[in-house]
Formats: sequence, structure tokens, C-alpha cells
Amino acid sequence: MTGSSRRQVLGAIGGGSIALLAAARTSAQSRPPARKLGYAIVGLGYYATQQIMPQFRNCRHSRLVALVSGTPEKLARYGAEYGVPARNRYDYKSFDRIRDNPDIDIVYVVLPNNMHAEYTIRAARAGKHVMCEKPMAVSVAECQAMIAACRAAGRKLMIGYRSRFEPHNRLAIELARKGEVGPTRVIIAQHGFDAKPNQWRLDRRMAGGGSMMDIGIYSLNAARYLTGEEPVSVTAVDSTDRRDPRFASVEDRVSFQLTFPSGIIADCLSSYSSNHNGYRVAGTEGHIDLEPATSYTGQRMSIRRGDQTSVRTVPPGDVNQFAGQLDHLSQCVIDGTDPIVGGEEGLADLRLIEAVYRAAREGRAVRLG
Amino acid sequence: MTGSSRRQVLGAIGGGSIALLAAARTSAQSRPPARKLGYAIVGLGYYATQQIMPQFRNCRHSRLVALVSGTPEKLARYGAEYGVPARNRYDYKSFDRIRDNPDIDIVYVVLPNNMHAEYTIRAARAGKHVMCEKPMAVSVAECQAMIAACRAAGRKLMIGYRSRFEPHNRLAIELARKGEVGPTRVIIAQHGFDAKPNQWRLDRRMAGGGSMMDIGIYSLNAARYLTGEEPVSVTAVDSTDRRDPRFASVEDRVSFQLTFPSGIIADCLSSYSSNHNGYRVAGTEGHIDLEPATSYTGQRMSIRRGDQTSVRTVPPGDVNQFAGQLDHLSQCVIDGTDPIVGGEEGLADLRLIEAVYRAAREGRAVRLG
Repeated sequence: MTGSSRRQVLGAIGGGSIALLAAARTSAQSRPPARKLGYAIVGLGYYATQQIMPQFRNCRHSRLVALVSGTPEKLARYGAEYGVPARNRYDYKSFDRIRDNPDIDIVYVVLPNNMHAEYTIRAARAGKHVMCEKPMAVSVAECQAMIAACRAAGRKLMIGYRSRFEPHNRLAIELARKGEVGPTRVIIAQHGFDAKPNQWRLDRRMAGGGSMMDIGIYSLNAARYLTGEEPVSVTAVDSTDRRDPRFASVEDRVSFQLTFPSGIIADCLSSYSSNHNGYRVAGTEGHIDLEPATSYTGQRMSIRRGDQTSVRTVPPGDVNQFAGQLDHLSQCVIDGTDPIVGGEEGLADLRLIEAVYRAAREGRAVRLG
Repeated sequence: MTGSSRRQVLGAIGGGSIALLAAARTSAQSRPPARKLGYAIVGLGYYATQQIMPQFRNCRHSRLVALVSGTPEKLARYGAEYGVPARNRYDYKSFDRIRDNPDIDIVYVVLPNNMHAEYTIRAARAGKHVMCEKPMAVSVAECQAMIAACRAAGRKLMIGYRSRFEPHNRLAIELARKGEVGPTRVIIAQHGFDAKPNQWRLDRRMAGGGSMMDIGIYSLNAARYLTGEEPVSVTAVDSTDRRDPRFASVEDRVSFQLTFPSGIIADCLSSYSSNHNGYRVAGTEGHIDLEPATSYTGQRMSIRRGDQTSVRTVPPGDVNQFAGQLDHLSQCVIDGTDPIVGGEEGLADLRLIEAVYRAAREGRAVRLG
């Protein structure tokens, strides 16, 4: 990187991010890992096979070494595609034998929500570190059990909050917290999509809930990472048409509001019947918009100050959010540090999701903490 | 207007609006008024003198004939500027003598909120029709008294909801209700500004409330006109820093949610410490954005359907929103019809503002109707 281009990047993504990147690089350079850490992917659905697995080629510290699925055809197909030998392919019965497989350092749980706790705990008991998709589980109690199991096993636990490794979101956090548009007054965050019928996400037994668990959690988590605060109260409204067969057991639209200790209000939306993906940080002097905000690619940032709106381009980092997330846990294992989005982060969101459900059900503000 | 340009306008602003315009024209053409109706402006502050009064030159059915102010210098200055003779200049003591002035058909009340009821009622008792700025008054009880007084006097009452005469808002109503982006699921509306200290808006005795009364009412009214429905429940969160001297007696930020009979959620924001002016109508297939939405000029509409976003330009109408509003009441007087935003419209908003305050104060959902 030339001095000039370094300065451009510095100007664009801010000094804090650069400092973090530089620190990560120095650490990696000064202590190169003997080998890439081996991931076992548990659950071979769309997200695992189409989004995560192709990303190992972009990882510096992580490689795909094992697959777990209940479907022999998937094991054969993806095993062949990714060069995973037959001895490293497991089904759910043989899963616990990963204990005897030294190729596997980390287990990535990409199963339906109601299976997160079980497979996280079994992985920890097998002596493996765990990456678990969000929502961390379907209840606070499950999250607590997962944290306890990983702690007891002396293994790390990280939750798949990929946006924390996405450059526009990192920049938004930095700009919001340093008051680029004045002190933050209001955050508006919206996430939703028009859910297709007949999928596990619409079955409460497997999903634990509806849009809040699946997509509203992005609005919720963004409100927390943009403020760096924990809410003191929650209000919520649920509008779900139970005659719509998609919503026989799970909720559709939820509008929920978080009030933070500094007085910031986060006004959040979750929807299974309309498309949303964006947030706005409104300060006293303008606002920061990210839309789409938490998509797989294509983030777009604009900043309004006074009467001027400008698009803020963010140069691509060395790694994208998926590879960044995978390598972060590997790096934590190598360095003996804690993930920035550990089990406590997932637990905090589940506590709030339970508070949102309660606020909506009881029609009243729920105080926290 | 040529056939071709008429078709363009038809395509742009839609059949319903054109039909209304055509009906208005036909009516005006078939029965030209003998004279323009005479307006008395009560209260010569910024909005009256800088926004409303310059618009009479764009009116077809309305003219400025009288001024009411407690400040002799203002009466002299604006009287001279607008050619209002000394006999048509009043102060608040002499106000009731407008009864004897046949030049005055309509009184436009542009006073601080706590004076709306008194001057509306006095104007009606003096035999004049009334245009009253929003919020209609500072309580439901006052609104009811105003409606009763105008009804008893046989005079029309209209509330200054200028956005209903603004072409982008009219188009948004039409598009939302006909399902341009699928059936509406969620409306998101935000209005706010960073309030300057030391003004009557920040004094509860004069304003009746804070940001909700002054700017949040735009979010509220938009949610109602975009759905065409009346909400069945309200939740709200108030976050006001009472240590900020601006907010010693009135509220700053309020997030409020309206649930409509069809299931639509309107997620609304009102702020006196951050700038907002926009709304989004989210349907199952995309969304309609208007930002700014309710500004004096410069509205910008974009429509997203699927993956495509397009800016929707709206040709300027024959008249702007200010002249359109002024002429609407004149036309109603001429035709003997009712304003589209009469006293009941203002009353509906005040009922909801009172519900918002109650929901925030009691920390619970308030059911309506």
C-alpha cells in the first residue's frame, strides 16, 4: 500500500479501524500460525453451503476440514466439492466422534435455531471451540447453558454476527460513536423480507419465534453496536395476521423501541411480510444512512450533514465479512483472546428478544437490568 | 395542456388526482366566483408573513384583505407591503369588529397553539369561516368546542394540513392505497428538527406540548392519510432530557406506533433534537419513499420494486400546496362543500396526540375507539 493510498483508506474508514487492522496484521506477522485452524460445518443448508463454505478460500487462518449432515447425498456432494475426506464426514449420530478428530478445531453450528444449544454443547464437550449462528438459541436459558458448557470445557464460543466484520458497519459504528453527525439522538433500524411459505423458519418448534429471531435481530443488534450501550427499557407492537398460513405459529411484523441510558431511542422494525434492510443514525447535526446495511454484499452509506448529502465509499478490506468472521475466531484461538461477539453477545440479544415478546404480549414497557 | 402532456401528467400523478383536478376546474369554469374570497390573517409571525401571505398572488379564489396583530409596527409594515388599508388592520382587542367588515370572508388563525381555540371561536361568532393552523388546538376538548362553535354559526372550519395539497403527497396517497408496491404492511414516518431555544414552541402554556404538537403531527397525519384508516391502538416512548433547558416544560423525542384495523403498523418519530422529514410506505413488493416529504418545497419521491429503485418526478401542479390550501377553503365556501381537512381531521389528530402522551406516560398500549 502506498503512503497516498494508505492515507485515502485512513480518511475513508477512519483511524480506529486502521489501527485495529494494523494491530491484527502485526500480530499475525509476528506469530504466524503453524497451520490454519480446521472448521467442521454442522448443517448443510443454503447459508452454510452457498455463503459460508465458499469463503474458506479467502481465509488466512481457517480451513474447511469436516462436514456434518443428516443427508448422505449432501455429505457426498459437498465432501467431493470441498475435498473433505470420508473420514471427516459425520451424521448427527456419529457427531460426538469429532472428539477423536484432531483435524477439527472449531465447530460451526448452522442448524435450525432449536438445535443450536444441543450441538454447541455437544461440540464443547467434544473439546472443540464453537461458532454458532444467530440467534444464539431460542431462549435465554439455552444461551446460559451454552455459555456454561463452553466455559466448563475451556473452549471459546462465538456467535455469527458477521456485520461486525463488514467494513461499512465498522465505519458506521466508529462515526456514530465519535459524533460525526453530532451526538446520536435516534437510531432507526429496519429489517425484513417477504417470507416464503413452508420452511423451518415459520415453525415455532424449530425457529423459536418468527421474524424477530431471524431478521429483526439485525435491527436489534445494530442498535446495540451503533450505540455501544445496553437498553434500559423496551416497548413493542406485534401485528401478525394469524389467518395467513405462514404465520400460524410465528410472528410477522414487530415494531420495537429501545431506550438507552444516554437517552437515545432506537426505533426498530422486524418484518416477515415486507422488505427492509437499513439503518439510520440521527445525530443533532445530520444522519448516517446505511441501506442496505446487513446484506451479504452491496452496502451503501450516505451521510447528511446540514443540507449536504454525500455518498461515502468504503474501500474493500483485505477480507470480506464472511472470511473476517471465520478468521476472527481462529485468531482468537491462536492468540488466546476472546471473540468480540461471544456468547454474552448472543445472550444479550436473546434477553432483549424475550423482552420484546413480553412487551408486545402485555402491551406495556418492559424495564431491563 | 396538450393531449400528450396531459397523458404524461396522468401517468405521473394518476387518474384519481386528475379526476379531482378536472372536477375542480369544471366547477370553477361553470360557476366563476363573483369575487375572490377575502382572508384576514391573525398572527403575523414567520409562517404567516414569510410562507402564507406571499402565496395569495398564486391564488385563484382567495385574496388577502385584512391583518390582525398585537404589534402596531407589523400591522403598518405588512399593511403597506400587501396594500391592506388601515380600516382592515386589527389588534386583539378590536378583533371582534371583523363582524362588521364584509371584505373578510375567512379568518386564518396562525397564532400560538393555545390561542387557536379562542380565535377560531371568536371568528365563527363574528360570522366568518375559519382556517386554523395545526395542531388544531392544545386539547380534544378545545377542538370539540371549536367544531361546535363553527357549526352553531353555520361557518366552515378547515385545518391547515397543507401536505394534502402537495402533489407528491397526493401521489403517495394514491399509490399507497392502490397497492403500487403491494398491499401496505408498514409505514415509517419521521419528522423532527433541532429546536432553537427561547421560543413559544418550547413553552407548554403556549404550545400545549412539545415536538409532538409541532412536528410529530406530520408523522401522525401522514400515517392516517397514507392508510386512509384510523388506528386502533397506540404505543409510545418519550425520551426527553429535562436538564436541557429547551425541554424544561415540553417533550423532545417521541417514538410512537399506530396499529391500524388492516394490520398496518405505522412506526412514527417526532423529535426536537434531530432533523427528520420523510416517510416510507412499505408494501409486500417494495416501498415508496418521500424525503423530504412535508417540507415547504423540494419533495423527492423514489419507488423501489424488487431490486429496482427509480426516482418519480411529479410535474408541478397549477398551484403549490400553500395556494392550494388557501383556495380549497374558498372553493368550499363558494360551492357549499366541506373541506377535505375539516375540524374532525384536526380533532382526530389531537385525540391521537393525547393517546401518545398517555401511552408514553403510563408505559402501556392505549386502545382507541
